[in-house]
Amino acid sequence: MKDIQSQVDHRRINIKNVGVKTISYPITVLDKASNRQSTLATVNMYVNLPHRFKGTHMSRFIEILNRFHGEIDLNAFRTILEEMKERLEAEAAHIEIAFPYFLKKNHHPETLNASKYQCSMHGSLQETDDLELQISVPVSLPLLEPLAKALPRSMGHWGVVFVRVRLKRFIWIEDLILLVEKGVAIKSQNVMEKLHPALSVEALTIFLAEKLADVSAIQWFSVTVENAGQGYSTFAAIESQQK
Amino acid sequence: MKDIQSQVDHRRINIKNVGVKTISYPITVLDKASNRQSTLATVNMYVNLPHRFKGTHMSRFIEILNRFHGEIDLNAFRTILEEMKERLEAEAAHIEIAFPYFLKKNHHPETLNASKYQCSMHGSLQETDDLELQISVPVSLPLLEPLAKALPRSMGHWGVVFVRVRLKRFIWIEDLILLVEKGVAIKSQNVMEKLHPALSVEALTIFLAEKLADVSAIQWFSVTVENAGQGYSTFAAIESQQK
Amino acid sequence: MKDIQSQVDHRRINIKNVGVKTISYPITVLDKASNRQSTLATVNMYVNLPHRFKGTHMSRFIEILNRFHGEIDLNAFRTILEEMKERLEAEAAHIEIAFPYFLKKNHHPETLNASKYQCSMHGSLQETDDLELQISVPVSLPLLEPLAKALPRSMGHWGVVFVRVRLKRFIWIEDLILLVEKGVAIKSQNVMEKLHPALSVEALTIFLAEKLADVSAIQWFSVTVENAGQGYSTFAAIESQQK
Amino acid sequence: MKDIQSQVDHRRINIKNVGVKTISYPITVLDKASNRQSTLATVNMYVNLPHRFKGTHMSRFIEILNRFHGEIDLNAFRTILEEMKERLEAEAAHIEIAFPYFLKKNHHPETLNASKYQCSMHGSLQETDDLELQISVPVSLPLLEPLAKALPRSMGHWGVVFVRVRLKRFIWIEDLILLVEKGVAIKSQNVMEKLHPALSVEALTIFLAEKLADVSAIQWFSVTVENAGQGYSTFAAIESQQK
Repeated sequence: MKDIQSQVDHRRINIKNVGVKTISYPITVLDKASNRQSTLATVNMYVNLPHRFKGTHMSRFIEILNRFHGEIDLNAFRTILEEMKERLEAEAAHIEIAFPYFLKKNHHPETLNASKYQCSMHGSLQETDDLELQISVPVSLPLLEPLAKALPRSMGHWGVVFVRVRLKRFIWIEDLILLVEKGVAIKSQNVMEKLHPALSVEALTIFLAEKLADVSAIQWFSVTVENAGQGYSTFAAIESQQK
Repeated sequence: MKDIQSQVDHRRINIKNVGVKTISYPITVLDKASNRQSTLATVNMYVNLPHRFKGTHMSRFIEILNRFHGEIDLNAFRTILEEMKERLEAEAAHIEIAFPYFLKKNHHPETLNASKYQCSMHGSLQETDDLELQISVPVSLPLLEPLAKALPRSMGHWGVVFVRVRLKRFIWIEDLILLVEKGVAIKSQNVMEKLHPALSVEALTIFLAEKLADVSAIQWFSVTVENAGQGYSTFAAIESQQK
Repeated sequence: MKDIQSQVDHRRINIKNVGVKTISYPITVLDKASNRQSTLATVNMYVNLPHRFKGTHMSRFIEILNRFHGEIDLNAFRTILEEMKERLEAEAAHIEIAFPYFLKKNHHPETLNASKYQCSMHGSLQETDDLELQISVPVSLPLLEPLAKALPRSMGHWGVVFVRVRLKRFIWIEDLILLVEKGVAIKSQNVMEKLHPALSVEALTIFLAEKLADVSAIQWFSVTVENAGQGYSTFAAIESQQK
Repeated sequence: MKDIQSQVDHRRINIKNVGVKTISYPITVLDKASNRQSTLATVNMYVNLPHRFKGTHMSRFIEILNRFHGEIDLNAFRTILEEMKERLEAEAAHIEIAFPYFLKKNHHPETLNASKYQCSMHGSLQETDDLELQISVPVSLPLLEPLAKALPRSMGHWGVVFVRVRLKRFIWIEDLILLVEKGVAIKSQNVMEKLHPALSVEALTIFLAEKLADVSAIQWFSVTVENAGQGYSTFAAIESQQK
């Protein structure tokens, strides 16, 4: 067999990534209420390999992941990335982890005691490290009086808010979710009470961007608001690098 | 190798089905406006084989399907079932076909000129034949005045209506869709104008069941209404054998 | 408002089901190794209501579910059904719960320490109760020597086995999974070593049906084997009522 | 109401995108065999709006799309982008369109006469325009002799190849698909005949990258090969800017 590798380099084919993806992995995450929350993650792990490309020991990714027994926090994230970079002799290491996060809200017996939010974290380590956190928050319009006085019924699914952040300092996922939900509640209550002409994706995006811009721990954010419509959705998105 | 087949029969293991599934197949369906509509179907075809079970010629299913060049109507359906039963020497033959159906609604340049509805047909042929048609119709609440006067915005996705029918006589998919949409429009308009306390899945299910019971071509129907809520959906279902 | 209910009865519209569905709910299940396993369930709960149909207290379903704090075993299942039947004054009660189940297999550091299997349970209570358990087991072909001597690589995803059982006596989910995996291993090893002409869905279905028929705790079963092909899948299915 | 817009600008919140997404739209695409092929697209259209953000006329996106009556080719793509940029007074315009593409292969009556490939195109227009084409090609291992002599059976789903290209000159989707399939066939045939130790994602990625590097019409490409494994997939990716 010819030396394929040198040919490839000659043609300036830049090797990019090699790794494992869609690993189903039970994890526990620490939540603000100081409880360990069990959830189920989907994990991708991959590295940039500058010189060698064949014969990656794919099992090493699993070996590194297994060492943490599913206890994933920001420290674990950093350590996993360092081990990947070192053991696979990589230029850069990446880990992506997506999981549903359950936020306990009340103890009323007749309502679900926790709401589900899809979260993900993407960590990279090259010379410096980088961490991006994403949450998605479902949006429902509030019931109007006198509708709300009737049996509990739903106005359906209005849409969803996606927030991505890079952080200067640690903040809890809970606090990010609650910031979004509070912003949505204010805007949608106004709309349903007809103080505003309509709940538009643009107005809600701007409103949430203002709230996120006030959080000093956030270094960069993007916020996207989607409204489910008939046959298609509409959306607006803002991103901002904070000072 | 021992004669597995006779053992199996001895143990009263009843052979059920063998076939092909999730075939992606472009088809054309005839719509009421006399146009052939191109769409993309997912097809399952299978037979009940009473005595022999090994060595089914799976390719025969494809061969039979190919003969119709994707022109699928009720006559084709019947012929496909007969060929399957005969060529595979089967006790019974089944075909399931699911496809998005586009209903042209208006020619206003600023709105989508067709709405999408997920449809499916399930045909069986044993001694007699049987055909069940299913449609799903998305439900959105209408915008309240003065919201409707503002820029066009959506109240989101309230839920979905599933209707399944067995027919005495042919009816168009269009007519079934429009019957559901008209029923939903009446009930939801009432609710939004606050003549009723809330749009409930039970009330809408009963209302639509009454409308379906008035259609003389329908022999049997079931109607299910689902309302997307926060964290879960609620639903109600009725089925009825018509006289 | 007119008395819709009596009209409906007059037309012989039979009310069927009302309930809640797609509740995302973290649960713990007891596994054979005597550990409580945390997983994430999707729950449907519904009842048959013979006389009254409007005004179901949907929140009662949630209230009943909450009382078990996510600790779901067969006893809890039975109690939930009884409470649903009684508190909602129903003719029959149903609960469906689907969840990924993780089976620990080895402690080799370089392999995933648990495999994921999608499971579901469907319980009903009318005059008598009924419980059906379903598992799905992914199937991969074994690597041939000398392939297996090389770096660990996968032959891909051959297909999946679905087993549904009704039980006379309790059996562990683990034991059902292992019975299927052992059967698949025997048949596919034979095929890859060319003792048999090919791994066919029919032969594997019959082989697994024989193994299931030997389990005295099983009252009824169905087994379906699917093989992912190019453009479509092939499948075979057997069901059997045991003596 | 306060002037939110000026506040936002003050805080350096950079407005990004506004538009419509997940429009289901029947389209026809021209294929190499000079036939118009009917398929079903999912369309996203959005613009970057530098100064104004509220009150986007979302219906204008639909109006522009409707004007082409679903006849989408590269000329239509360019014209749509120009109209979006002009009519929405945008800094940049984007359109993403994803659709299954059916490639006719043979006229053997016992095999599906067309294979399905998921394709997408992403066009942008700012000062200059940019077009990226993506195809995904499913990979199955060939049957070994004497397996291939038996009834046609499948080795299952080995994985998938994703190719993305930016072009200097037009090339047909067909030619890109066939290049990948031919490359996969050569490599996987070799593996199954045991000339090579195993079909690895790395070796197949490099092999396909070499083939793509030989196509003079391609300006930039990325190729990713995924192998479905037990519990997770492995993958390798290369991207290359051509001279």
